[in-house]
Amino acid sequence: MEPLFELEMKVRDYECDLQGIVNNANYQHYIEHTRHEFLESCGLSFAKLHEDHIDVVVARINMSFKTPLKSGDRFLSQLSLKKEHIKYVFLQNIYRLPDRKLVMRAEVDCVALVNGVLQDVPALDSVFQPNIIKECLA
Amino acid sequence: MEPLFELEMKVRDYECDLQGIVNNANYQHYIEHTRHEFLESCGLSFAKLHEDHIDVVVARINMSFKTPLKSGDRFLSQLSLKKEHIKYVFLQNIYRLPDRKLVMRAEVDCVALVNGVLQDVPALDSVFQPNIIKECLA
Amino acid sequence: MEPLFELEMKVRDYECDLQGIVNNANYQHYIEHTRHEFLESCGLSFAKLHEDHIDVVVARINMSFKTPLKSGDRFLSQLSLKKEHIKYVFLQNIYRLPDRKLVMRAEVDCVALVNGVLQDVPALDSVFQPNIIKECLA
Amino acid sequence: MEPLFELEMKVRDYECDLQGIVNNANYQHYIEHTRHEFLESCGLSFAKLHEDHIDVVVARINMSFKTPLKSGDRFLSQLSLKKEHIKYVFLQNIYRLPDRKLVMRAEVDCVALVNGVLQDVPALDSVFQPNIIKECLA
Repeated sequence: MEPLFELEMKVRDYECDLQGIVNNANYQHYIEHTRHEFLESCGLSFAKLHEDHIDVVVARINMSFKTPLKSGDRFLSQLSLKKEHIKYVFLQNIYRLPDRKLVMRAEVDCVALVNGVLQDVPALDSVFQPNIIKECLA
Repeated sequence: MEPLFELEMKVRDYECDLQGIVNNANYQHYIEHTRHEFLESCGLSFAKLHEDHIDVVVARINMSFKTPLKSGDRFLSQLSLKKEHIKYVFLQNIYRLPDRKLVMRAEVDCVALVNGVLQDVPALDSVFQPNIIKECLA
Repeated sequence: MEPLFELEMKVRDYECDLQGIVNNANYQHYIEHTRHEFLESCGLSFAKLHEDHIDVVVARINMSFKTPLKSGDRFLSQLSLKKEHIKYVFLQNIYRLPDRKLVMRAEVDCVALVNGVLQDVPALDSVFQPNIIKECLA
Repeated sequence: MEPLFELEMKVRDYECDLQGIVNNANYQHYIEHTRHEFLESCGLSFAKLHEDHIDVVVARINMSFKTPLKSGDRFLSQLSLKKEHIKYVFLQNIYRLPDRKLVMRAEVDCVALVNGVLQDVPALDSVFQPNIIKECLA
C-alpha cells in the first residue's frame, strides 16, 4: 500500500489495559483520528461538516490485529482511500516504530449522510478526487 | 452524607489500566454518568438541555481517591446536591460493594450556560428545589 | 442467531461524540464487556486468566453499523460462540430497546496466548464446550 | 508558574462529547499523559515502575475548568512539581494555542506505593530532586 497520508503517534499509558497492551478499541480511536487529520489536510473538518449537516459515518470496519502496541511505543498510522459507489473505503495500517512491524490492518467503509439521508456529497468527492487510488492494495 | 440518588455499577475491564486498577479518569466518567442519571430521574436530559441551548458544565472538580476499584468490582455511586449562588455543588461518593469501603469522594461544581452565557436557569432550579440539601456533609 | 448470553446496557453520555451519537469505538467496549461478562458467567475471569499467563486476545474484528445509539438509549448486547480450529469466534449483535432495531453486528475472532504463545487452552475449551454452537448464524 | 515540562498536544475528535467540547474526563487523560512523558524525560517509565512493583498513584486531584477545548484545537500542557512530605504535588496548566488562553488548572497529589505500601522512593526522589521547585505557584 502506497499511503496517501500518514501520522506519527505515540501510545499513551491510559490506552493500555490490564493486559499491559493497548486496548483494542483504542485502535479505532487511532484510525478515526488519522482519517480526521487526513480530512483536515484536505481542508475539511469533521466538526464543521457536522455543523453543515453532513455526517460522515462508518458503515463497516474490519480490523486484523497482528502485534500489540505497548506503553511507550511510537507508531505510524497510514491511510489510503478508494471510492466504491457511494462508499469511501479507507485502507488503514499501523506500524510500530522504529522497526515498522505491522500492528494492525483495517478496512473502513464510510458513507455520507446529508440531513440524515445517505447520499453522494460532490463537495466531498471533489476534494477527495485527486487522492483516490484505484489499486491501492498490494 | 444522606444520598439523594444512587446508582449501582460494575467495573468494565477496559476501564482498568496497566496497573490493573480502574484508571482515575474513569471515576469522572462514573460520576458524570451518575449526575446525568440523576437529572433523568428528575425528568431532565443532558442531551435535550444541550439541544435547548442550556449546557450544564463542570467548573471545578475535587476528587480524593481512597481505595482503587479492580476488575469485577461492583460499586455504589451516590450523589447529594446543594446550591451555592449560581453553582450546583454535587457531593459524590463511590463505595465498593459488598463491603461499602470508600473508593472515592468528589465535590463537583457545575454551572449552567444558556446560549453560552452563565446564568441561573429557573426551570433547572425548580426541578432541583425539592432535592436540595442545605447541610449535606456530615 | 439464538443468543448464548445477553446483557442489557444503557448509553452513557460521555460515550457520545460531537455528532450526538455513540462513538464507534465504544461499540468495541460494549462487546468486549459482554464477552467478559459471558466469561464470568462461565466461572472465568479475564483478569484472573491474565494473572495465570493466559491472555485471550482479539485477532480480527468485523463490525457493521446499522443504526446509531443516542443519549439515553438502552440496548441488548447478545453473544453466540463457535470454535474454528484454534479460534473462538464470537458473533455479537446489539439491538436498541425497546424496539429491538439492529444497531450493530460483529464477528470477533479471539485466540488464546499462554505465556505469549498461541495455543489451545483445554481449560477454556472445556468451559466453553457446552456453549459452542455449530451453526449459529441464520 | 515557571513550567518544568511542557507538551504540545491536539484535540482528537473522539475526545469531544455531545456538547461539542472536550469531555472533562479527557483533561485527566491529558495531564496524566503529560506526567508520564515528564517521567520519561527523567529516564523513568510508569510501566517499568509498575513491573518493579512501584506504583505511583493519584491520591487527590483538583481541577478548575476555565475555557473548553474544541475539535481541532491545539494546546500546551505544562507541569511543575513540588514535594510535600510523602506527596509529589504536580501543578498542571493547559493553555489553548495559539492564543494561550487558560483552559484548565489542576493540582494533582501523587504518592508512591512499593508492593502496595505507601512509602518514599529514594530512586524516585533522586531523579526528581533537581526538578523540584519550592515556590512554583505565582
